[in-house]
Amino acid sequence: MKERIIAFMNEKRFKEVRSEILQLNSVNVADILEELDTNEAVILFRMLPKDMAVEVFSYLSNEQQRNIIDSITDKEIKHIMDELFFDDMIDFIEEMPANIVKKILKNTKEEERVLINQFLNYPENSAGSLMTIEYVDLRKDMTVRQAIDHIKETGIEKETIYTCYVTDANRKLEGIVSLRKLVITPDEKNIEEIMNKNVVYVHTHDDQEVVAHLFKKYDLIAIPVLDKEERLTGIITIDDIVDVIEQENTEDFQKMAGMEPSEIEYLDANFLTLAKNRITWLLILMISATFTGRIIQKFEDVLQSVVVLAAFIPMLMDTGGNAGAQSSTLIIRGLALGEIKTKDFFRVIVKELIVSTVVGIALAGINFVRIYYIEKIDLKISITVTGTLFLTVVLAKVVGGVLPIVARKCKLDPAIMASPLITTIVDAVALVVYFSFASWILGI
Amino acid sequence: MKERIIAFMNEKRFKEVRSEILQLNSVNVADILEELDTNEAVILFRMLPKDMAVEVFSYLSNEQQRNIIDSITDKEIKHIMDELFFDDMIDFIEEMPANIVKKILKNTKEEERVLINQFLNYPENSAGSLMTIEYVDLRKDMTVRQAIDHIKETGIEKETIYTCYVTDANRKLEGIVSLRKLVITPDEKNIEEIMNKNVVYVHTHDDQEVVAHLFKKYDLIAIPVLDKEERLTGIITIDDIVDVIEQENTEDFQKMAGMEPSEIEYLDANFLTLAKNRITWLLILMISATFTGRIIQKFEDVLQSVVVLAAFIPMLMDTGGNAGAQSSTLIIRGLALGEIKTKDFFRVIVKELIVSTVVGIALAGINFVRIYYIEKIDLKISITVTGTLFLTVVLAKVVGGVLPIVARKCKLDPAIMASPLITTIVDAVALVVYFSFASWILGI
Repeated sequence: MKERIIAFMNEKRFKEVRSEILQLNSVNVADILEELDTNEAVILFRMLPKDMAVEVFSYLSNEQQRNIIDSITDKEIKHIMDELFFDDMIDFIEEMPANIVKKILKNTKEEERVLINQFLNYPENSAGSLMTIEYVDLRKDMTVRQAIDHIKETGIEKETIYTCYVTDANRKLEGIVSLRKLVITPDEKNIEEIMNKNVVYVHTHDDQEVVAHLFKKYDLIAIPVLDKEERLTGIITIDDIVDVIEQENTEDFQKMAGMEPSEIEYLDANFLTLAKNRITWLLILMISATFTGRIIQKFEDVLQSVVVLAAFIPMLMDTGGNAGAQSSTLIIRGLALGEIKTKDFFRVIVKELIVSTVVGIALAGINFVRIYYIEKIDLKISITVTGTLFLTVVLAKVVGGVLPIVARKCKLDPAIMASPLITTIVDAVALVVYFSFASWILGI
Repeated sequence: MKERIIAFMNEKRFKEVRSEILQLNSVNVADILEELDTNEAVILFRMLPKDMAVEVFSYLSNEQQRNIIDSITDKEIKHIMDELFFDDMIDFIEEMPANIVKKILKNTKEEERVLINQFLNYPENSAGSLMTIEYVDLRKDMTVRQAIDHIKETGIEKETIYTCYVTDANRKLEGIVSLRKLVITPDEKNIEEIMNKNVVYVHTHDDQEVVAHLFKKYDLIAIPVLDKEERLTGIITIDDIVDVIEQENTEDFQKMAGMEPSEIEYLDANFLTLAKNRITWLLILMISATFTGRIIQKFEDVLQSVVVLAAFIPMLMDTGGNAGAQSSTLIIRGLALGEIKTKDFFRVIVKELIVSTVVGIALAGINFVRIYYIEKIDLKISITVTGTLFLTVVLAKVVGGVLPIVARKCKLDPAIMASPLITTIVDAVALVVYFSFASWILGI
């Protein structure tokens, strides 16, 4: 379908293009626009019915949005800005260069400009930066009939009409009522009788992670956002929260791999940004790892007399790192989902101690059989390696389980206590144990 | 609030408890029930108004659900089962032991039993296992007025009424119409004129990851599920998809840390399960790491003559592992979100080559200054270490970038190509480079 429309575009068979396009979902039309060059994209964009054009626009990449805004008339821009949902407009303006923003603001009314500026000033990743102002506003003395009539008149411009907000003359939120409730309630009842006063809400400056957590906990499809004076200023809808959830997860993945989190998609990021995001942690960890090297230097005489000890360093370091990474990942994830709290500190330690003992015995056992019986390594060395392996696994798992919780206690992001950092710590300790053990058992 | 109610419960001030409870959201009541012991929980549960009781029940943990089912009468069980949404009931039955399932099935009608069995047979993590049967069903020859009247009569039992499904006599899906559209359309219009025929749908056996992807792409709040004969069999709503998204992310976190994915929460999992999930990969990686050890053994004479070389092994291994983990994490995440496709293979290689060269030069430069000028290490050794560091970073980033895409091409889960595996591969190669370089430059 997509290929056919693009082929029609190339052959300038615009009539066929139009009739095909009208069958499609706006998301798919946006997909097609992304594949066309600017000229063709503008031609196709102008073919769309006005309502569809606005919807398609909201699904385009920033690059293609900019191309289109650059090529259409002020009147067309004005129409798009008037019809875009407010949150989509803010997202769009935030990403545009100054000349385009100027072109857009020229085409908006004074009062809307004030509102745009207010929204642009909400902190990044705050509830304020996610919300939209197109919600249904009811009064508690309305009847159900009046409320439904009000929705009929104004509903088409609202982002959602499925949750309606009951406010007083000062915009204080008094309750919510769902469209479901309105539809199944007799016409003459008052809103006050059926509204739910026990409302879950957030404030404009709350972090988006808090908002996402409430959506998950209460299975919401929209949440009201209040300002400092507890007045209703906007709502956030579930579609935006789904994006927030994925964004927060991406950030955690990035932090846990020792990178600065970034919202730019990999293929869109330039190499300097990518390098910059990666280098800080690599550098910190590289320098930390040189201390691990110092440990080896300190035990140089042990190593000199029994060089075969070096052969087990990679296995000990890797296994320790992997064991620690497993535990820290589970705990970081549990903290992020709210399944583990800081008060579970001791439960986590006990659990990791037991699990690591089981895992450690299994790994050490298999390892002993392999190096003593199969590789015929000297008994004392086999014992040293196996003993160190066991202790390393236990230690790695306890450290991996504990550090994320400590980070949360210290108001740091637990995600930094992930594989790279844990590995570096565990490596150092493992080597100290290894060589101390060796010099003791081997009597060097 | 929560503490006060629990205190009232302990003092058996049930009247106060009841009046407090009625002010609360069902989610919060469920939270409180979780904190009480079984006897008190059952007392409190029985105080709840019937509708609320069912809702609260759906938010309880499996353990507390089991406790309550064990302590209430068959009639009460029947009421809960009748009123629970079908998907919640299936989720609940799936987790219960056989004796409880028997108790429940005894209290359901024959036809419902057949349906329950059908639902229990959908593959885990399929669309079928997520869907519910409580949707609003319309016919295309209805008027808007008739449709709204139909919703008024039946809507209270539906999981969502905001998207309504238009089917023919054979249950074939002909279109959808939103409640918003119904509310703003004049009463006498026909459903056929206003319904949207271009419907996004899934089949019962589609994987939940596919379903979640469609919700994100099209900003859906519900999706219809068709069977093999293209008949409408159920719908999936956004609240369940939010859980799926978090579950899929958790699985990726677990796989990327070298664990078997598990849906059991950390604190609920017993230590044997936790140990079992961790040991396979640790064992595979431990044995792989012994091959890295072999490399050191092979170069034992080099190491014997220049023991200081051993001191740089941890730094080279750790930095290589970290550099590779960064790249693989970005690519795995990009593939999971659909931002990177297998056809981007060469773009990824080029990007990683450039980024790793920049990062490698920076790290190698800083490292050279440190070991040659500050630590006064021999020039030849400094060059060996620095050169190996540079090559390791480049190699690690290219391998880390490429392997997840190769995995996807081979229909494997890219998430296994994460830090633990990449680290093991990179370690081995880094050591070969290191010692070959050393024996060449130092002429050993």
